[in-house]
Amino acid sequence: MRLTANLEKNGILLAGERKSLKIEGFQLGNSPREMMPEVVAGKTIFLSTTNGTPALVAAQAGTPVLVGGAVNFTALAERARALFTERSDLAIVCAGRDKQFALEDAYTAGRLIKAVKKGVPPKQLQLNDAAQVSLALTARYKNWRDALEQCDAARQLAEVDLAADVAFSAKADRFAVVPVYADRRIT
Amino acid sequence: MRLTANLEKNGILLAGERKSLKIEGFQLGNSPREMMPEVVAGKTIFLSTTNGTPALVAAQAGTPVLVGGAVNFTALAERARALFTERSDLAIVCAGRDKQFALEDAYTAGRLIKAVKKGVPPKQLQLNDAAQVSLALTARYKNWRDALEQCDAARQLAEVDLAADVAFSAKADRFAVVPVYADRRIT
Repeated sequence: MRLTANLEKNGILLAGERKSLKIEGFQLGNSPREMMPEVVAGKTIFLSTTNGTPALVAAQAGTPVLVGGAVNFTALAERARALFTERSDLAIVCAGRDKQFALEDAYTAGRLIKAVKKGVPPKQLQLNDAAQVSLALTARYKNWRDALEQCDAARQLAEVDLAADVAFSAKADRFAVVPVYADRRIT
Repeated sequence: MRLTANLEKNGILLAGERKSLKIEGFQLGNSPREMMPEVVAGKTIFLSTTNGTPALVAAQAGTPVLVGGAVNFTALAERARALFTERSDLAIVCAGRDKQFALEDAYTAGRLIKAVKKGVPPKQLQLNDAAQVSLALTARYKNWRDALEQCDAARQLAEVDLAADVAFSAKADRFAVVPVYADRRIT
């Protein structure tokens, strides 16, 4: 593939998945365990995924668009809480899975709402349906791993021998950075 | 509107809403309290709604497509349970609200799953993420009215003076029929 080869010279890596698997001709799939410093440091990654990429595009009207999950949760929650305190409003966009509800997203959203709303009097807080239900989920699962291992995505990853991705993703606060998405780039 | 007038002669009524309100030129909105026997008996209703109509179109590959809610819940659950026993599979399509998650739908889906799965050993039951969470919601609300009154749709209806629609819709088993959708018709 000429296009791929040319991109590589310019410090660009193609990454992405369809049905959890690496796209043919791409250097990287979508497994976090592939994105190691020795592979990606200093590179620009062109990433195309089934659910996450469209969600970021949908969220692009927000300023800033924070990108997060269990892996950077404490840092994410701190940034989100600061923004909420300043603006009294927070929109959480879940990527979902094949345009359907995804448990791991809703659980993460619930954890974020719980962290952000701490100290806000209930009467001053308005939660939409999805927020109400996401918040309720935080009491239903013991921890990140418990929630993430019970979701459909985890079952699908296990089927294609990527179960280790779930354990990797469920380990909280691996990173203390909060990537920001703007102009179709995450930096 | 000539089209409307002509349709009326043929025993057809136009019904539907945009943002909860009757569409201009239509005889009926989307309030169940308008659909009284003296108005609709023997008539064919052309119905266009923001969420319910697209959901039915999306569900049309199913045979049969049952239509239900609190108002015909016992009858609906009986039919669904019989089908599930026969086929070991059940797909529930929620209409949602403006393409987003809607609490009233998820609660209803959860009640249906609970009724349908009665007696099925947990190990023989596979629930996807949305089904898992919907089922969990059944324990969170006291009854239909409790769930339906706390949803975004109820707040929006109250804003346009249609709060009575919520109470109407939350009264279980008003009807013992299960309408079926096929060929773009509910009969």
